[in-house]
Order: sequence, then structure tokens, then C-alpha cells
Amino acid sequence: MVFKVGLLGLGTVGTGTAKILLDAARRHPLLETLEIHKVGVRSLDKPRAVDLPEACLTTDLEAIVTDPDIDIVVEVIGGLEPARSLILEAIEDGKHVVTANKAVISRYGNEIAEAAKKAGVYVLYEAAVGGGIPVIQPLQQALGVNRIETVTGIINGTTNYILTRMESEGGDFAPILDDAQKLGYAEADPTADVDGLDAADKIAILASIAFGGKIRREDVFTEGIRNVSASDVNYAKTLGFVIKLLAIAKRNDDSDTTIQLRVHPTLVPLNHPLASVNDVNNAVLVEGDPIGRVMLYGPGAGEGPTASAIVSDVMAIAATLHMESPAEEKLPNPLLSNAYSDYKTISPMEDLESRFYLRLMVKDKPGVIGHLGDIFGQHGLSLESLVQIGLQDNLAELVIVTHEVKEGDFQKALEILKASSADVDSIASVLRVLG
Amino acid sequence: MVFKVGLLGLGTVGTGTAKILLDAARRHPLLETLEIHKVGVRSLDKPRAVDLPEACLTTDLEAIVTDPDIDIVVEVIGGLEPARSLILEAIEDGKHVVTANKAVISRYGNEIAEAAKKAGVYVLYEAAVGGGIPVIQPLQQALGVNRIETVTGIINGTTNYILTRMESEGGDFAPILDDAQKLGYAEADPTADVDGLDAADKIAILASIAFGGKIRREDVFTEGIRNVSASDVNYAKTLGFVIKLLAIAKRNDDSDTTIQLRVHPTLVPLNHPLASVNDVNNAVLVEGDPIGRVMLYGPGAGEGPTASAIVSDVMAIAATLHMESPAEEKLPNPLLSNAYSDYKTISPMEDLESRFYLRLMVKDKPGVIGHLGDIFGQHGLSLESLVQIGLQDNLAELVIVTHEVKEGDFQKALEILKASSADVDSIASVLRVLG
Repeated sequence: MVFKVGLLGLGTVGTGTAKILLDAARRHPLLETLEIHKVGVRSLDKPRAVDLPEACLTTDLEAIVTDPDIDIVVEVIGGLEPARSLILEAIEDGKHVVTANKAVISRYGNEIAEAAKKAGVYVLYEAAVGGGIPVIQPLQQALGVNRIETVTGIINGTTNYILTRMESEGGDFAPILDDAQKLGYAEADPTADVDGLDAADKIAILASIAFGGKIRREDVFTEGIRNVSASDVNYAKTLGFVIKLLAIAKRNDDSDTTIQLRVHPTLVPLNHPLASVNDVNNAVLVEGDPIGRVMLYGPGAGEGPTASAIVSDVMAIAATLHMESPAEEKLPNPLLSNAYSDYKTISPMEDLESRFYLRLMVKDKPGVIGHLGDIFGQHGLSLESLVQIGLQDNLAELVIVTHEVKEGDFQKALEILKASSADVDSIASVLRVLG
Repeated sequence: MVFKVGLLGLGTVGTGTAKILLDAARRHPLLETLEIHKVGVRSLDKPRAVDLPEACLTTDLEAIVTDPDIDIVVEVIGGLEPARSLILEAIEDGKHVVTANKAVISRYGNEIAEAAKKAGVYVLYEAAVGGGIPVIQPLQQALGVNRIETVTGIINGTTNYILTRMESEGGDFAPILDDAQKLGYAEADPTADVDGLDAADKIAILASIAFGGKIRREDVFTEGIRNVSASDVNYAKTLGFVIKLLAIAKRNDDSDTTIQLRVHPTLVPLNHPLASVNDVNNAVLVEGDPIGRVMLYGPGAGEGPTASAIVSDVMAIAATLHMESPAEEKLPNPLLSNAYSDYKTISPMEDLESRFYLRLMVKDKPGVIGHLGDIFGQHGLSLESLVQIGLQDNLAELVIVTHEVKEGDFQKALEILKASSADVDSIASVLRVLG
């Protein structure tokens, strides 16, 4: 039995995907049953890094998603449209779909899953999160027998690269971003990465699978790394932390239906497994009962890794098709389905318990620390450490790490600090601490 | 559709398995289709940590593997016999089998896989390697589309615990082993762990899956950690390494059928992902084309993690049974089969290229270093670093790290060094360095 693949897009990831499919030797034997039938490209004249028969190539993407010979459509053009419409058309036409498109899946995943369920086809997207690292398959399969408690990820390579360099060089955000752009580690428009939007797309997808429910993409609290300064990276190091952009999905202890869902720069203790995930690498830490802590680590982007994830999804579908009876009534593979019925409620940030890192400039005069202590105390905020870093122009720089406190209470205390102009000159930075 | 499970053994792992199966809420919905039908125990009177109907329990293990109501047999009694025979009987009786038994699978895996193929049943053993970490499923599925080059694992928790403590405390092997035994991290008879036999079982299993061939368990070169001294751990640290017991399976560059397969204490560079895998944690690093490097990390043993892996296998089988047509001719799930046709040839150790760490005591007199250099040079052995650590009793302690060299050539040079009594007092230790 041979299954025919229609590939939408022949950019970096599309090229990587074609390379694997065209060269099956010494890979899983199932790959021999897969054949590239059509490849949709923008222009037929462009030179290609992969050797495909000319008859394969077409600029007519619609023709691919409705080609009766094609069993599985692979969407790697990216962006919201026409990707979303092509995916839906392919589904309607009875084709299985594999995509790397986190933007589409995090926003239209529910619509797509429902269409797929109705059409009796599979839509898989391992490549949408963590590049080549097997994340979605393990969450849904091997780890799925656990009661998942937390999924914590470093799932954006660009920001992790920038933060790693800030840490190793002691440099500031802006010049390192500049350099990352020159080196190709950050895009010309870095917004989606540095403002945390890409990580938010991905954690929305992971949360949906980990907790078995629909997620509204707009519910993800998102804070990027633009305001992380060299000083904070340095003070964090002194206190035994490294700053990482974490994406966190967490089941609330007391509830089956509400979860926490957020992306923000975070102080991670140096002995935590995520602390040593550096450069463009990604990692996803899954905590569950009874497994404890498992971490999946690897390259979060790039031609080869992303193509590996895509082809693994194509293979999972092929394996299922291979087993399918020719009977009328096909029973779906329950490990490949991801249509959920209910939405998860996302807890408001102010209800979350967190530790905080706070750097502020205070007046260098007697009684200031006592006054700050009073404000913290009134808001139920206890300090884990308080370090006076230095004195300049009659101002003292204080770095504080709190114990766990409700975010709402912390923010109220912060408002009062900001208004205490007799004691407090300015709040230099506020970051959350993993813990 | 409900599938009935027969559980052989109700020790730690059996208890953990039963706990998950009896409490399916907030886990994968497929678990609701699984039911514990019988549990085989040694004695009916023992108090149990899990609440099972009395009628479930039996001391008659044979009756379980031949019970016509049972679909899936889970073997967690451990040891070679009667585990092997019970597994084979269950297969012959048409039952699917899930086992955590690395000793049986590494020795009798071929016999078992062939019996399973003949009987048209699945035998899965995710729990045999890396406890709860999904290793075998990803290797066979998501990562299987890659051309796997290397699988490198820290896959024995006891030795990793001991080496981690030696490193953090600067202590010697024997007293820390003693303490580990008292704390329950090492068994009363620690041979299987500290001599590398358990890791050898596991890497034989991983190599078979990663490279798609049969492995003879006795082909695994195995060296344990008994001879790793506090001094070596300390010198390694000074040179930027940490000592880990690595299990390595590697495809030879120039061959499709020969691989390297070995377990030995190894100096791992501090910036390598495996270097920060500490305590009883396990990790498996997979390198392949085009994915690059992926690492799977987590708890390598224990009730919860191992039970998680077992139940994930049971669920994989249930998912496949769920899809199966009632037709006469069942098509097997190609992602769950692991019967290989050919044996892999294991390269002899002397042909392997490796870097070496060598600690030796030499006479403190002019010309010694030059003479050693001559011996090394004659065997094609070039030095990456040579450190003179100290002087005592007219002897100088030298620590040498070589560049890559054929093991056979290194061993020849070593023989000559040992015989050079005018210059060399003794060879204190020889360890391999991850390259």
C-alpha cells in the first residue's frame, strides 16, 4: 500500500520534508510506503535544494487539496491565510492533514479539529511546538496516562538565544537582538518572538492536549523579554537564577476545569532542569501523577528538526491507514484524535500564586526599609531575600525576592510602592520567579 | 469496548500500575476502556497498598496467561524465570503482553518478538528502559523517521546517584555505595547496577530499536564504576568534565550493519546535555539525521514512573485493538511491531576511536615526559592535555587526555607504558572521554 503526499510549500521546512521522504533508506520502513505526489510552490522557476520531478511542482495549491489521488496534505506555507482555508478544504475533501502552523492551530484548532472529526480524517501538528522534539505525541500518548499537572516550556528559540547571550556576555537586550537579526537567529520583525506571541501560540496548543480541552488563544497572558535588562540578568545570577522566557500551563489544584496559562520572563533556579537549556534549544518539562518530572529537550526549529516532526506525523497517519480495514465503518485511532468538547477556563493572573523578583531605587535615608516592610506586610507579602546592591546619587538599589504571594496582592503592594515617592524613587523591574 | 488486563505481580511496579488503572479520572479517556481482570501474587494474605476485589487475586500465574477473558497480560514480576515462560505462554495463548523486564527482553527479545509475530500479538516494553521517560515509543515512532546515528544514555539510576554524590561530596566509591544501600538507592547485591550489567541490558534493547536489528546481549562491552576513584572525579572536574556511566550505541559511519555498543564510565564535557543529568535521573540522547540532538530526561525508576510507562504501552495496545476491524485478516500496527530479521554486527572495542583519560605515576627525573611522548607518538596517539598534578615520594602524578585514537593502539601504548618500569611506576586509571 502506498500513500500519496501533497506538499503545500517548498521553503526551508518543505524542502527538509521532501528530503526525508525522497531518501527513506535506514529510516523507519514505513517511509517506503509514502510518495510525494504534488508540491505546491509560489514560482516554478526558482532553483530548488531538492530534486523533484518537474511534473510534481505546481503553483495551484487548490488543486493539491482537492486532488483525488492525494491521501495526506502537508501544510508548510505558514501564516494564517491561505493556510487555514487550504487546511479546511483538504479536510472537507477527505484528506488527512499534517501542519507545522502554530498560528493557525492555536487560533483555529477547534474549528479544524471539528471539521476533521466530521470528515473522519486526522490533523496532526507535532512540528508546531518544539521543532523536532517529540512533544505532542508523547503528551497525547506515553505521558497521557498521567494526570498532567504542569507543562512548562522554553519553546521559543529566538528569545532563548538572546537571553543565553545576555547571560554569558552580560550584554543588553537591544544590541544582542540586533546581532541575532544579523546572524539569522531573529527575524527582521522580531515581534512574534520577543514579545512572547509565538510561545503563547505554542503553550495554547500544549495546554489543550495536556488538559484535554479547548483553549481560547486570546486567554494566554503574554509578556515578552524586551524589558529584561543586563542588570536583572546579572542580579538573578548572583541570587542563583537564570532568566528564561517560560510558557506555563498548570492545572489548578482545586479544579478540573480551570487552568493557568501564561508566558513571561521568569527567574529559574540554577539547579532546575530548564536552567541549562541554552541557545536556540527548546525544552518542555511535563509534571504529572504518577510520573513526576519528565523533560523533552532538543532543537526547537530549523529545516531538519521541523521536517523530522512533520514526517513523524505523516508516518503516524500512514501506520493507521495501513491498519484500517477496507470496511465501510472505519474506527478512528483514539491516540491521534484531538477534538475536545469543552473550553478550559483560564484563571485571571491576579489569582495566581507566584514568587516575585523586584528591583527598585529607594531614597538612602533611615526608615526606608522599615516602611517598605510595612507595605509588604500589609499585603501578605513575605520576603525570601533582600539585597542592597549599591548606592548612587543618594539612591539605594534594592533587589527583593518574595515568597509565594497572590499576584493581585503583589500588584496592589507595587502600586502603593510606586506612590510612596518619599521613600521610593522608581521601580526598575518586576519579574516572576519559578517556584 | 472494554479490554481486560491480567497483571502478573503486585510488587512496587504492579501496585503503581493497578493504581493508575483503577483511577482513570483526568487521564487519557482510553483508560476507561481498561479493566483489571486478574492479578497474580505470591501470597493472598499480604496487606496491599491498592484496593482490589478479592476475587481478582490469585496465586496461579499460569491461569492468568491462559485466561480466555484476558486481552493484555502485564508482566512485572521481574527476573528471568518464570517471567520468560509466562510471557511466551501468554503470547501463545493469543494475548498481548506488556513488560518492564529488561533482563528478559535483552536476552530473549528475539525469541519473544518472533513468537509474537507468529501469534499476531503485540509485546511492548517501554518501561524496560528509562523508567517513566518515553524512550522506546519516540525512538520507534516520532524519531524513527530519522537516520539514527547515536543513542547515548544515562540509564542506570543507582550508578548515577553514586557518581553524582562522588562529585558533589568528593567522596570515594565504597562508602557512598554503602550509604546508597542504606538509603535504598542501591540493592543489597549491587552487582547488576555498579558493574554496568543493567545498563547493558537496556542499551541492547535501545540499539535494537534504533538500528532496526537483532542484538546479542553478550556483545555489549561492559565496564562498571567500581574503579572510579574520588581523585579521578576531582581531576575530571578540574579539566572540565564530569564522570558518568554512559551506555552508547552508535552506527558506524561506513556501514549499514555494524554498530558500536558499550557501557563504561566516561568523562563528559560539562557543557554537554548529559553532564547535568544528576542523582537517580536518567536521560537518553538521540542523535540523528536530520533532527540533530534530542534528549529525553526524567525519573529512571520508581513505582510511579515505571507504572506510567507500563500503562502507556497497555493504552497503545488498547488504541490499536479499538481500531481493529472484526474481520478475519487483521493488519498489524506497524508502529508497535519490533521483530527484526537480521543481527547487527558489533565492532570489536579495539577498532573504536575514542579519547582517553589516563592517570599515571611516573618517576620524577629528567627525560621521563620525553620518553612517554615517544611511546605515544609511536602509536599515533596525540595529547590534548597533560597536567602534572603533584609530587610525592619522588613520583609525579600525571593526568593526560588524548585526542581520538583507536582503542587498540591506545591499549598497545598502555602495555608498553606498564612495561617501562624505569620511567613509569604505575597506571592509576584509564577512562574514556566522550568525543
